[in-house]
Amino acid sequence: MRASVAARFAKAYPVVLLARTAATYEGSVKAINDAGGKAIGINADATDRASLDAAFETIAKELPDYKLAAAIYNASGGLKPAPFVEIDPQVLESSIDVNIRGFFNFAQKTLPLLEDAVSSSPHPPSLIVTGATASVKGSAKFATFAAGKWAKRALAQSIAREYGPKGVHVAHAIIDGVITGPRTEAYTGVNGGAPDGKISADSIAETYWSLHTQHRSGFTWEVDIRPYVEKW
Amino acid sequence: MRASVAARFAKAYPVVLLARTAATYEGSVKAINDAGGKAIGINADATDRASLDAAFETIAKELPDYKLAAAIYNASGGLKPAPFVEIDPQVLESSIDVNIRGFFNFAQKTLPLLEDAVSSSPHPPSLIVTGATASVKGSAKFATFAAGKWAKRALAQSIAREYGPKGVHVAHAIIDGVITGPRTEAYTGVNGGAPDGKISADSIAETYWSLHTQHRSGFTWEVDIRPYVEKW
Amino acid sequence: MRASVAARFAKAYPVVLLARTAATYEGSVKAINDAGGKAIGINADATDRASLDAAFETIAKELPDYKLAAAIYNASGGLKPAPFVEIDPQVLESSIDVNIRGFFNFAQKTLPLLEDAVSSSPHPPSLIVTGATASVKGSAKFATFAAGKWAKRALAQSIAREYGPKGVHVAHAIIDGVITGPRTEAYTGVNGGAPDGKISADSIAETYWSLHTQHRSGFTWEVDIRPYVEKW
Amino acid sequence: MRASVAARFAKAYPVVLLARTAATYEGSVKAINDAGGKAIGINADATDRASLDAAFETIAKELPDYKLAAAIYNASGGLKPAPFVEIDPQVLESSIDVNIRGFFNFAQKTLPLLEDAVSSSPHPPSLIVTGATASVKGSAKFATFAAGKWAKRALAQSIAREYGPKGVHVAHAIIDGVITGPRTEAYTGVNGGAPDGKISADSIAETYWSLHTQHRSGFTWEVDIRPYVEKW
Repeated sequence: MRASVAARFAKAYPVVLLARTAATYEGSVKAINDAGGKAIGINADATDRASLDAAFETIAKELPDYKLAAAIYNASGGLKPAPFVEIDPQVLESSIDVNIRGFFNFAQKTLPLLEDAVSSSPHPPSLIVTGATASVKGSAKFATFAAGKWAKRALAQSIAREYGPKGVHVAHAIIDGVITGPRTEAYTGVNGGAPDGKISADSIAETYWSLHTQHRSGFTWEVDIRPYVEKW
Repeated sequence: MRASVAARFAKAYPVVLLARTAATYEGSVKAINDAGGKAIGINADATDRASLDAAFETIAKELPDYKLAAAIYNASGGLKPAPFVEIDPQVLESSIDVNIRGFFNFAQKTLPLLEDAVSSSPHPPSLIVTGATASVKGSAKFATFAAGKWAKRALAQSIAREYGPKGVHVAHAIIDGVITGPRTEAYTGVNGGAPDGKISADSIAETYWSLHTQHRSGFTWEVDIRPYVEKW
Repeated sequence: MRASVAARFAKAYPVVLLARTAATYEGSVKAINDAGGKAIGINADATDRASLDAAFETIAKELPDYKLAAAIYNASGGLKPAPFVEIDPQVLESSIDVNIRGFFNFAQKTLPLLEDAVSSSPHPPSLIVTGATASVKGSAKFATFAAGKWAKRALAQSIAREYGPKGVHVAHAIIDGVITGPRTEAYTGVNGGAPDGKISADSIAETYWSLHTQHRSGFTWEVDIRPYVEKW
Repeated sequence: MRASVAARFAKAYPVVLLARTAATYEGSVKAINDAGGKAIGINADATDRASLDAAFETIAKELPDYKLAAAIYNASGGLKPAPFVEIDPQVLESSIDVNIRGFFNFAQKTLPLLEDAVSSSPHPPSLIVTGATASVKGSAKFATFAAGKWAKRALAQSIAREYGPKGVHVAHAIIDGVITGPRTEAYTGVNGGAPDGKISADSIAETYWSLHTQHRSGFTWEVDIRPYVEKW
């Protein structure tokens, strides 16, 4: 879905993709540039503030004429169901890292830049956060996964309340289903194998774009997104 | 907001406006037709099943070549705060009428038509329901108002779960703020008189249109919509 | 569960059971009186304000020395899953009657009496409302059932906010499971037939009593109640 | 409130108080023992698994004839409102420590002991978790506080779903108000200085006890607790 969102926003803006490894963004960067858009990929680890600082210095150098119109936090960790008492504390730490510490750092870095773009941006500068069903439900055997997702949603909601009045749009998306993409191509039985039983990554990108382009008098804080056939 | 939504959907479809009195829809119908779109207004009362039947017969005659792509239920009643024990039972009945009975009838009438349009409609046929903060919060002195809104949301959610798998998109919007329009023009102090402190009716229309055009693999059940300066 | 709640409160107070037919309360009234408590049964229909007025006149005559310490609204209608478009409007009306109109009347009748008892009652006078899973979830094919339950919860929440500061405790219980009793005795497969897989009516009564006896500095607005084995 | 809860449970069981410093539990331990109950205080830090292990070894030695009937997690951190971008990452880490890491360790340590007590305990063994309004709302300027509280609630909910079927009762309490106690004695203006405008710690203890004594057929997962005069 990272590639779809980048491609959608690249129709209007130069985009920067941050990831821990180049493999995560290379294809997407190439595709956007080949299609006549502008994309940059930078290695960065949101759990490491110095790494994030370096990345944004690079961005400032590479795109000196642009302000930040939208920032999207999409990092996610592996989801391994496990009986609670068997969960290795390291699994909890990973969930904290990617969902809480990483997002906290990313938000602290991007919010001042978004705020700085309020008066000049064509649409209200936006921070969009990808969540999951586990952002609102603590299912049995998904304790640490849910803990990270809930905390990320809490951070986003608090920020939304603080930054709305500044003109920055913070939104949270609850993705309730399996998303199309290389990682899930093999899952053929999702929703009984129904056509469009996985969420098209492009459709998420379109919804994110519609969030970004909302007028400031009508901000949405949260959307849920799920396939028509999903049971909920 | 009725006019804005009609105008937005009229960019793509002929639209039909139903209201108990012609005064409610006349201006909107004229504006759309003047602008080169196609609009019809019909007197109808959703609490009266015969009236609704008659309206849809008229629609079938007037627009024989069209199927129903989207239905929007936007009726709302007056909101009068009152101590609970002083509420006249008739006020409860009004809230039941407009929010529950009216929507129930409207949904029973439109859902088969929406389902019938699934295979041919350019976007998943949609039933969009306008709610309010009172749809999720029972504030003191707004008991009957909240009762109606919660019940309408319950109906919509149940229908969303039943009709999603059929390809019909049912969505509920929580409008959390004062909407621009003739009725609210005089309210100059909303959100401290901040610019864009009222929700632009056009921005709601745009969000409704983005809901309607979502791909079936990524339906949103609910959005909240509020001004950037709204306290929530 | 009516009998269990009555029996529990009868340990401390004389109790009055209201129901449309005597068969509903007779056994319970007899059991309480036989056990040395005090119970009265009165035929009343909460959807009929005159009937409710008459019932409370009878109560005033029969128990002239007592004020109202607790009122419990427990009426419920049949739950018949049905495709939405096949639901007879009369089924909606029934749900409105029992959940909305009936509770509205009952609350209007009892709240002034509860308020009047604040200064003399041993525990904060309480209005306890029985809800269900359908009070917070609009499941497919349970549209009208959910509509009634949501609306009842909205009324209760609004009243809780208005009457809390007056010292009256309004609480809502989400009963998430099958309750023991004559009506459900035959359901042997609940929760796979697990022991205590149905909610003991006595355990609900005990929880209601603990709500009633809460200190006014620590009111609970809502509890959920479900068997340990229930999936949620 | 620690002292009140300990005193309430000490009416039925020997109790053990864990805290990082003896000053936190000394008075409570002495009061219970003086009153003829049995209480032990142990220095322990829930964020340190070795410290927790040592504490439970001590408990096993001191109370060899007892199984664990109830465990209550009550640790909380300071609540300092701050603009999001000014929050020191260390403040986030503290919230993670006390709310997430600490509770995770505590739950992993106590759940097997609670499970082991199921067949012999007079009431279903219980893990009760103290939450706050910030457990369900991410207010502006309380981002890290809310993140910790939401994550703790997510862990508790996941555990409740996993351990309910084993007969262990996991419950979460949303404390919505200021609690009486030495730390808050000076706050005289709470709820406009209304009598009982702070939540009596004893009333929370009573509600926790009623949760612990619920029958397994009627477990409550979550209660909210607030003063009658609290605005919500």
